[in-house]
Amino acid sequence: MNESRTGTANIDQRTGLEILGPAECEALLQRMPIGRVVFVDDEGQPLALPVSYRWHEGNVVFRTLEGQKLRAAVMNQRVTFEVDFWDPETRTGASVLVKGKASTVDEWAEIELLEQLGLMPWASERWRARWIRVTPVEISGRRVP
Amino acid sequence: MNESRTGTANIDQRTGLEILGPAECEALLQRMPIGRVVFVDDEGQPLALPVSYRWHEGNVVFRTLEGQKLRAAVMNQRVTFEVDFWDPETRTGASVLVKGKASTVDEWAEIELLEQLGLMPWASERWRARWIRVTPVEISGRRVP
Repeated sequence: MNESRTGTANIDQRTGLEILGPAECEALLQRMPIGRVVFVDDEGQPLALPVSYRWHEGNVVFRTLEGQKLRAAVMNQRVTFEVDFWDPETRTGASVLVKGKASTVDEWAEIELLEQLGLMPWASERWRARWIRVTPVEISGRRVP
Repeated sequence: MNESRTGTANIDQRTGLEILGPAECEALLQRMPIGRVVFVDDEGQPLALPVSYRWHEGNVVFRTLEGQKLRAAVMNQRVTFEVDFWDPETRTGASVLVKGKASTVDEWAEIELLEQLGLMPWASERWRARWIRVTPVEISGRRVP
């Protein structure tokens, strides 16, 4: 069904992992409810913070509070958004990395649109006032065969 | 049962999330089969790569291949190890961040000990030759109440 999976699986010779095609990466991004915003904090520490998110028109969008994640976004830092799933019983799993730029969504029309996505923050809503968008520069994925 | 949970839950006023105590952080580290090594690659991009791991004598240990993760370790970079779990139905979840230093395990006696932990890599074993240890500098955790 998926053209990137016809023929021989595409194996990363360095790691032995199967390389996911663009459609498979996007399918995982559409499917997972939680991903991790990966960025460097103001003390130079790389961090990953889990958030509920949506894959919306080719971008990752999520809501956040005034704080680290938002600051990273406003500073137009390089960030990565990571999603993965894994099944300890079958020892299978896959992950997708979206390398990109984070920015706040400031246009009222777009905020209104995003509010209709049905993305409810898990923590108290009043703490999650701002929308952040991660615009992909590069998307890659790997699967444990 | 857990002394860190007696009395009022400790709430992070900035985020509205519950702050996990040391014992709760360690319990999550002991329980999860997969975590994410968070580091900055040689192009300055923050990345998170999922690995199977063990929490062993107060350190995170995992096996890896020659490549990015190993390089980060050898360079004695600041890294973070992240674990989380989440339940979309109950909208609950928790995450733990282990900020620390990564290093390769080079002592034969210790490698032999680690080989007995039963940590099998999910991908082909021949690609996962080296043990990496993340020695914690700071451990923190949050829970969505």
